[in-house]
Amino acid sequence: MKKINIPDNMTVAVLNAYSGADALSIEQRPIPTPGRNEVLVKVAFAPINPSDLATLKGYYGFKNPTPIVPGGEGSGEVVAAGPGVMANHFLGKKVACTGWGVGGGVWSEYVVKSVKGGVLSLNKSLSLEQGAMSFINPLTASAFIDIAKKEGHDAILLTAAASSLGQMVNRLGRNEGIQIVNVVRRDAQVDLLKAQGADIVLNSNEAGFEQQLHDACHQTNTRLAYDAVAGELTNQVLKAMPQNSKVIVYSSLSQQKVQLSPDQLIFENKMVDGFWLGPWISNQNLIKIMMLWKRAQKQIPNHLKSEIRKIYPIQEVKEAIHDYTSQMTGGKILLRMS
Amino acid sequence: MKKINIPDNMTVAVLNAYSGADALSIEQRPIPTPGRNEVLVKVAFAPINPSDLATLKGYYGFKNPTPIVPGGEGSGEVVAAGPGVMANHFLGKKVACTGWGVGGGVWSEYVVKSVKGGVLSLNKSLSLEQGAMSFINPLTASAFIDIAKKEGHDAILLTAAASSLGQMVNRLGRNEGIQIVNVVRRDAQVDLLKAQGADIVLNSNEAGFEQQLHDACHQTNTRLAYDAVAGELTNQVLKAMPQNSKVIVYSSLSQQKVQLSPDQLIFENKMVDGFWLGPWISNQNLIKIMMLWKRAQKQIPNHLKSEIRKIYPIQEVKEAIHDYTSQMTGGKILLRMS
Repeated sequence: MKKINIPDNMTVAVLNAYSGADALSIEQRPIPTPGRNEVLVKVAFAPINPSDLATLKGYYGFKNPTPIVPGGEGSGEVVAAGPGVMANHFLGKKVACTGWGVGGGVWSEYVVKSVKGGVLSLNKSLSLEQGAMSFINPLTASAFIDIAKKEGHDAILLTAAASSLGQMVNRLGRNEGIQIVNVVRRDAQVDLLKAQGADIVLNSNEAGFEQQLHDACHQTNTRLAYDAVAGELTNQVLKAMPQNSKVIVYSSLSQQKVQLSPDQLIFENKMVDGFWLGPWISNQNLIKIMMLWKRAQKQIPNHLKSEIRKIYPIQEVKEAIHDYTSQMTGGKILLRMS
Repeated sequence: MKKINIPDNMTVAVLNAYSGADALSIEQRPIPTPGRNEVLVKVAFAPINPSDLATLKGYYGFKNPTPIVPGGEGSGEVVAAGPGVMANHFLGKKVACTGWGVGGGVWSEYVVKSVKGGVLSLNKSLSLEQGAMSFINPLTASAFIDIAKKEGHDAILLTAAASSLGQMVNRLGRNEGIQIVNVVRRDAQVDLLKAQGADIVLNSNEAGFEQQLHDACHQTNTRLAYDAVAGELTNQVLKAMPQNSKVIVYSSLSQQKVQLSPDQLIFENKMVDGFWLGPWISNQNLIKIMMLWKRAQKQIPNHLKSEIRKIYPIQEVKEAIHDYTSQMTGGKILLRMS
């Protein structure tokens, strides 16, 4: 095993129960050793994503027994390599790493990752801050546009549209000639998206919202919606779209069940589906994913850029989460690992 | 125009508002005259279907301004033909007729129908009573099995499984080697289906139902459900099935919204769709529909037979509907038109 300067212990954020941020603690653990085809990453930054919040509360698709280390993605440098040519190839490189598979979550000063999908080389021009957010949102935004184009849509609807992901989909959609019907829940979010060039932004808390949404969807022939909210909003979106439409639910920020009028399913030929990035990636051809990843990295300085609102040291992870949940659309919160 | 003995006036059931059976009245109207490619049918019998109940309350997919004549299907004899070779061909024949398109609903002593899809010749061996129910349920049951086979399922789940349609799908499924997980809501319905040979029948009002349903779906690898109830039951069904499953909602007997846990859509790759017979037929190749129709007629004496519980004269349509809604699984209620 080749090494660069590694201490014995590291700082780790540990989730002790699936009950949210209060169940997090900061611990010291021995630094793990990479096995064959594995590398040790010294983590630099990790964002707090909505999927991390879901993990903390036990709503996410993976749910290993606690204690676990959360953190769905991050950036860092490969500081040690286990046996294997590929592992050696990564040594000293700047990488993005995912929080699943070997090694688990990345809210940790160091993490072991498999070279088969756990780490991806970052473009040299990309900062470690942007690189930390280069996987989940950029690939999700790319997937949304990819699905829309493959199914022949030239207009889509987004709920929670002022999120980092929503802003990204707007920029990418504009670049690809796809019209976006944006749904937000505050006037400040309307202003934010309009200032960024969005044409159609509707506030779901405004009087007349359902009629406005209906008109916008019919004028633009929007028949595909990506919904991050669930609850009654999913039904409002389904009803507003023309016949033969589909809502794809990818998050449930309202923490409520999806509501649907049966007549929309039966008589309007509408349907409801889900989206999860992991299986979507697994179902794609590997070459396509590498191309999407390379293209996404190129676009991170512009269409796929995430605004950063604040960076917290990992020791202040609870404060960071509190800050994030109090204002999820004002730019990302990053954790700095050391 | 060729005629056989036709009086001037006829008895018709008229719906005056979309507020249910109480808004029905019995009226006398002049008998209409068939135009080119149309025939006049002297209606014999018409069933009360769940889709008729939905029509009466304004929940159905078609909703013309009231007053309307309801009645989604029926049987009768062609007693007059307008100009055209096909129309003439039907003269004197026993037919099934649909309640949509030209001429509208069939709860009427006479009705004009287009020869292009409004009437279908009945096998001579079929009674007018069974012929009156030869379209909607037999073709729906055939469609359910057809969809299941096309998508590679060898097990399906049915809610409201003791309905006439449910019993039909059970017989047809057994004949085609498709396992059925039946969900009903009363013990008497469990007994009814078991007496007819069903293997798996679960009562949704029994303690431990969700676990039983989960076990049944996993043991049989049931990943397709046809749901006639909506409300929370749709969610229970979606949750009980393995990953990559689908619920197709085709009615909403609970008159409640469909409820869905977002995590089932997102992390379990499950989806919810709707089914409506009309568009399903329109999307099939005409030859396929004629083959399904011919095959359905052959199977009506056995797999696709509907039990008849009682026959009411059209003048007692309100009592007939009341009787039907009080016990929807004990055999069909027919209306006799003259």
